[in-house]
Amino acid sequence: MAAIYLLPNTLGQDNFDTILPKDVVAIVNSLTYFIVENEKTARAYIKRLLPDKNQRELRLEILDKQTDPLDLPGFLDPIKNGHSIGILSEAGVPCVADPGATIVSIAHRKGIEVRPCVGPSSILLALMASGFNGQQFAFRGYLPHDRPIRKRVYQAMQKDIRDGITQIFMETPYRNGKLLEELMNTLHPETKLCIAVDITLDSEYIKTQTVAKWSLEHPDLHKRPAIFLID
Amino acid sequence: MAAIYLLPNTLGQDNFDTILPKDVVAIVNSLTYFIVENEKTARAYIKRLLPDKNQRELRLEILDKQTDPLDLPGFLDPIKNGHSIGILSEAGVPCVADPGATIVSIAHRKGIEVRPCVGPSSILLALMASGFNGQQFAFRGYLPHDRPIRKRVYQAMQKDIRDGITQIFMETPYRNGKLLEELMNTLHPETKLCIAVDITLDSEYIKTQTVAKWSLEHPDLHKRPAIFLID
Repeated sequence: MAAIYLLPNTLGQDNFDTILPKDVVAIVNSLTYFIVENEKTARAYIKRLLPDKNQRELRLEILDKQTDPLDLPGFLDPIKNGHSIGILSEAGVPCVADPGATIVSIAHRKGIEVRPCVGPSSILLALMASGFNGQQFAFRGYLPHDRPIRKRVYQAMQKDIRDGITQIFMETPYRNGKLLEELMNTLHPETKLCIAVDITLDSEYIKTQTVAKWSLEHPDLHKRPAIFLID
Repeated sequence: MAAIYLLPNTLGQDNFDTILPKDVVAIVNSLTYFIVENEKTARAYIKRLLPDKNQRELRLEILDKQTDPLDLPGFLDPIKNGHSIGILSEAGVPCVADPGATIVSIAHRKGIEVRPCVGPSSILLALMASGFNGQQFAFRGYLPHDRPIRKRVYQAMQKDIRDGITQIFMETPYRNGKLLEELMNTLHPETKLCIAVDITLDSEYIKTQTVAKWSLEHPDLHKRPAIFLID
């Protein structure tokens, strides 16, 4: 039966054997129709994953911030003719910290089967490796830049930590250094902070210690993809 | 360098090519020391994954609710002699809804490298497939059985939904039917509910619709592993 496949991408390095199950590659190979954020990078990824796949027969729809929401239901038309569709993320798994969720929501309304595929999520890998409580956690996405709202998020996170809920968040990579400074000035010195950088890359770096200990260290986070966790 | 590897298990079916990257199998093959929840099921899993691996040379430490916390630091002794250690979950990825986090926390205190491996997480796969907001979400674990506390969790979830934070939770599998009934009686008819059952298994079933529509349907959830999401 035709279905929507949620296809993972790498987190920046083509270590396919490390991050993708073999069947995911076979599924990508079986598909002609894709929904992607960026045509050029999506085609380049498919080419590296499957050098022999015919690129000219691929049919790609672009789903980004410019896409008219009224166009979205039409993206699913190939299903009517028995063609499955792949939703491909720019990095990691689709629909998590990523715009794919809208189209999946429409698929559910239309009664189309949705099949998520196993792949790398920096959020999940960071949580596993943090040593923090994985029984209850909250992903707060990118911290807001508006100061009063950001302050409220910090307050909410500190309350949650007291309730034993691990907090996970991110920042635009070029602002990582500033965020770390802010964390040093905002959090209690005994709060545990995990910084996970370049996950699944050769340069992967994951470390958990108290804020007091981090303040003696200055890891280079500039423009590197990073996840922050507090507990 | 010797490290702690966080090794995924299946979610109940030995579809290794669907759920595990090839390198994860190679890592399991390279290890002698493991920390596991249950010796018998861990050995059986390693045997199915790697029929030729010598089971007699495996060294397994048991980490479950009976384990004395004072024994935990000793579990990491093989690292001193240059041996890497694998932490293996009973299902899915370790340390998420799972007791592995304590040992990872000790590893960080000792400055031991922690390497998370890609594998299936029913929480993450359900979130991807739900069509719900993946920019901000909260995993609330197993809902508490105590009535007043449970009521407070429902209230907190309903507040979070209004703030656009997807809510993810679980129930002991034999109580899934009762939970579904409770959701029908507690949530607003227009709240969207995703039920994801038997993820990655042949019987996988993932569906999102309003509470009003669910109340006309009675999916068989009894004793099946299920994740519930509301948005």
